[in-house]
Amino acid sequence: MAALTFTLGARDGAARRGRLMTPHGVLDTPAFFPVGTFGAVRGISPADLLGAGVQGVLSNTYHLHLRPGEQVVRELGGLHGFMGWPGPMLTDSGGFQLHSLDHLARADEDGVRFKSPLDGSEHFLSPERAVEIQEALGADLIVCLDHFEPVADPPDPARERLLLERTLRWAARCKAVARREDQWLLGIVQGGGSPALRLESARRTAEIGFSGYAVGGLGLGESIEQRSALLESSLEPLAQDVPRYLMGIGTPEDLVEAIARGVDWFDCVVPTRNGRHGSVFTPDGPLNLRNARFRADPKPIDASCDCQACSGFSRAYLRHLIACGEALGTRLASLHNLQFYMRLMQDAREAIAEARFEAWRSAFRARYRGASPATDSAA
Amino acid sequence: MAALTFTLGARDGAARRGRLMTPHGVLDTPAFFPVGTFGAVRGISPADLLGAGVQGVLSNTYHLHLRPGEQVVRELGGLHGFMGWPGPMLTDSGGFQLHSLDHLARADEDGVRFKSPLDGSEHFLSPERAVEIQEALGADLIVCLDHFEPVADPPDPARERLLLERTLRWAARCKAVARREDQWLLGIVQGGGSPALRLESARRTAEIGFSGYAVGGLGLGESIEQRSALLESSLEPLAQDVPRYLMGIGTPEDLVEAIARGVDWFDCVVPTRNGRHGSVFTPDGPLNLRNARFRADPKPIDASCDCQACSGFSRAYLRHLIACGEALGTRLASLHNLQFYMRLMQDAREAIAEARFEAWRSAFRARYRGASPATDSAA
Repeated sequence: MAALTFTLGARDGAARRGRLMTPHGVLDTPAFFPVGTFGAVRGISPADLLGAGVQGVLSNTYHLHLRPGEQVVRELGGLHGFMGWPGPMLTDSGGFQLHSLDHLARADEDGVRFKSPLDGSEHFLSPERAVEIQEALGADLIVCLDHFEPVADPPDPARERLLLERTLRWAARCKAVARREDQWLLGIVQGGGSPALRLESARRTAEIGFSGYAVGGLGLGESIEQRSALLESSLEPLAQDVPRYLMGIGTPEDLVEAIARGVDWFDCVVPTRNGRHGSVFTPDGPLNLRNARFRADPKPIDASCDCQACSGFSRAYLRHLIACGEALGTRLASLHNLQFYMRLMQDAREAIAEARFEAWRSAFRARYRGASPATDSAA
Repeated sequence: MAALTFTLGARDGAARRGRLMTPHGVLDTPAFFPVGTFGAVRGISPADLLGAGVQGVLSNTYHLHLRPGEQVVRELGGLHGFMGWPGPMLTDSGGFQLHSLDHLARADEDGVRFKSPLDGSEHFLSPERAVEIQEALGADLIVCLDHFEPVADPPDPARERLLLERTLRWAARCKAVARREDQWLLGIVQGGGSPALRLESARRTAEIGFSGYAVGGLGLGESIEQRSALLESSLEPLAQDVPRYLMGIGTPEDLVEAIARGVDWFDCVVPTRNGRHGSVFTPDGPLNLRNARFRADPKPIDASCDCQACSGFSRAYLRHLIACGEALGTRLASLHNLQFYMRLMQDAREAIAEARFEAWRSAFRARYRGASPATDSAA
């Protein structure tokens, strides 16, 4: 039996209920991976994550390569041993950070040369190195290196073509060097802001052949309608029996819309980053705890939630902690948001399994938008 | 029966084993209160604190008065309800922050006028207001306002006399207005760097009459020998059956030396602040996790410790988290240090109860100093 398997269960429209089996346990899909940039989810312990219902965690290859370095992580038992996280784990390739963060990076056909913002040291990330680093880190799911750039305004078709072709060549190079059989290497669909290029990227990446596919380059300012169209083009050529991962997205509404189009899992900093800033999610929409109306509010964030924050603390106390920059506030608000995301995924899975996804999606959206004016946005 | 009682159990030399009963449960003494400046112990939840064996927590009146304000705290059930902390609680008077922090404060016989560093608003803290605020906050143990200044160099006897007399007058004013019978108001012994003034301050504060006594103004750079002499003078005039609290101290060795002189409880930021900076305590002395030798060290901080950090994480991982400024590192290192302090207090209590305190103190010191060069100081 293979080290990883993905089993597609119920389908409801384009939405899918599935199960990924990994050497570190089960991921029920649709699923959401919290982001542990430095090998930890911002102040939250593995026990806290398990308590919130989290099944899988993402860590960032770029950050861990720079510090402490993948060899240290490998010596300490890989990311699972290093972080003390027992469940499924995912790493990205580092490509997104290299092409988006503020540091000196020069990409050519070979790969990307960049300087560490920590100490100015020179580094080189090629498709082969990205796989090698991720094999040392040892996550269950790893991702091909892509050459990513935000869509230019006005669009630059020649540049988009170059990036698409290069990303395809890099995908083939990644596949050629991947050695570990207990990891799945995911291909990555790009194609910028063009539905035609997205279709082509997905079709040709699938021709190279991967166990699953990530969709990158979305969630960068395009409208939800634009994104939905680009996502549909990115998924359309992919076989049904392989899992699809939408990278770096998003808000609760974003997730529901992407599930409706056939995405199986997500990662995003929104629940933890927004929590840190006092924005917390409820079925009736987000609340901004910094708002003065919560100053002496004895109620929990959400009376229907049994997370650590809602079980023991008032909105007034959480507001106070966040106003003071006290780390317990960040932790409790982040844990609440993560538990909200986990419940959202669970509700989606149940709705798909019971063939009532569309009704659930409509009811979710109506309630989520109804009680929350558009100005109280969480994103 | 009184709302609070202090029962002195075994004595061994000057060291004392006691028990404080409060409306919120028991404090076994000698005891240590972690500091929750903003109404939380830096990222650590009440459940974490209970798991580390913490019985009592201190919160800072000055910070809570400015934000969220004592009326908000009172509306939400006092500090116990606000913070979700079920056990004994202590507040300071705000005097230390007013006289030591960097803000505009002018003290005269009436009290202290100061501006909030948050918004520039004008505030006035008198002895009466200090009690009123602490009654609104609702801790089990509250402290008289004192007029504190670091000892001048060269000493200024006239100034020390003025501060001593004023602090005594303020103590009488505090006692005159304290109303809540479920709180104990503690007198405060000052007297600067003069053993004679310390003796006089303690004798005359005891003449006013309090249920317990705090000793302030120590731990500000004096040698351990100087401090021990000043502490002995501060305690000597006090009756044996009242508890003694040494404010703002200290390292593990400081605590053992003060217990040897008859102190019953302490508060200090050392375990949490040092933890945040990567300094962690072990029976063999402190370790600085930032040291390069821990880069790939798979061992826990202390193999004999069962705290959250030592149960699941390597020195290498904790070092990485602290190097990255990741809040989980702060939390785990702080929790380890708190559990070390709690075990130190427990060991001291057992040694006193079994009339072997001197032997325990010597053995503790020899081991703590032996394996750790003086340059690896935790303080």
